[in-house]
Amino acid sequence: MNKIVLHNYYRSSTSYRVRIALEMKGLDYTYVPHHLRHGEHHEPSYLAVNPQGFVPALIWSDGTLLVQSLAIIEFLDESVPEPPLLPTDPAGRARVRMIAQMIACDIHPINNLRILTSLRTLFGASDDDVANWFRHWVNETFQPLEKILSESKETGKFCHGDTPGLADICLAAQVVNNTRYNFDMEPYPTIARIHDACMALPAFIKAAPKNQPDAE
Amino acid sequence: MNKIVLHNYYRSSTSYRVRIALEMKGLDYTYVPHHLRHGEHHEPSYLAVNPQGFVPALIWSDGTLLVQSLAIIEFLDESVPEPPLLPTDPAGRARVRMIAQMIACDIHPINNLRILTSLRTLFGASDDDVANWFRHWVNETFQPLEKILSESKETGKFCHGDTPGLADICLAAQVVNNTRYNFDMEPYPTIARIHDACMALPAFIKAAPKNQPDAE
Repeated sequence: MNKIVLHNYYRSSTSYRVRIALEMKGLDYTYVPHHLRHGEHHEPSYLAVNPQGFVPALIWSDGTLLVQSLAIIEFLDESVPEPPLLPTDPAGRARVRMIAQMIACDIHPINNLRILTSLRTLFGASDDDVANWFRHWVNETFQPLEKILSESKETGKFCHGDTPGLADICLAAQVVNNTRYNFDMEPYPTIARIHDACMALPAFIKAAPKNQPDAE
Repeated sequence: MNKIVLHNYYRSSTSYRVRIALEMKGLDYTYVPHHLRHGEHHEPSYLAVNPQGFVPALIWSDGTLLVQSLAIIEFLDESVPEPPLLPTDPAGRARVRMIAQMIACDIHPINNLRILTSLRTLFGASDDDVANWFRHWVNETFQPLEKILSESKETGKFCHGDTPGLADICLAAQVVNNTRYNFDMEPYPTIARIHDACMALPAFIKAAPKNQPDAE
């Protein structure tokens, strides 16, 4: 068995999600950075690894290539069961996946670097336009997410009960990413509380962008 | 046990995904349409059902609310095991989820109605700008997806082997959605072949947008 390899970038929030899961599972891995703002993920050597040219990509110990952060995390959870990142009941699993996908589908893809760059090049968006765009789509999802989390009896110290899992991984990585655009967390006390609970855990701290070898 | 209720819209490709899964599992359901272009999903009565105001939302027979199409489909697969929509091995499951998420995270959220409307209102995008935006982001993902599908020995009649599943559901719904923008499928023979194989199946036909009660 070879060592696990993670192709990633310190500031990518999808990379951060996978790093948290690896730390929670206690898995050691080789960190391979790709500087997104320098376009290193578009180099032929990396496209040979991941044709989509995105980070993160994880090479499992048997050589299997895994891409798409939620697919990678579910693979880790199925391959290394402890500690579990999803509950065992289908309704609970659906609720955790719902929260994860509200962030992974409805916030992140609209606000990532390739989209923000396109707004500038195609429509002449200014720095303010880009910041407003970013904050708008976070608010559009954080408003219902705050409502869901604050009103549900299934919410505990974390998104689903009192142990951290897939939903918390996505939530924490998004809240950290938001700080780049001076995002106001005041309307979201439940999300902020869960983020704080996550950031008290060693796995979330060790995996944080600022603690990576390529952090600037 | 009550009858399953699906809140949806005939032309929403995420609604189409869930309808296909319901048909494949042989589940009868009550169809509740919400006309997205008339803003019916933003009405208080619907926000009381789903705070995010999105379709699809599924009310399971025990009253459980399920939202986010991939979370709903995995719930259906865990609750009604036959026919399975995911393989049993973790690597196969990760591959199917990867393909599904390439579409569900990297194409659909960027091209849905709320984003296209924002491009018009915020940046004055024309009909041509919107069509080019839509096609650009489909191409950005379809290029690596075609490469992955055409080069992998795990691709069969469908995305993963010779039985349809979660990845095919997302692929077929996206290809159908693309037709609204005169999308050229010529560069994507493997994706086109898999779409054709899907569209020969009763579940995909019965769930198709044009065959829904609210189709215009």
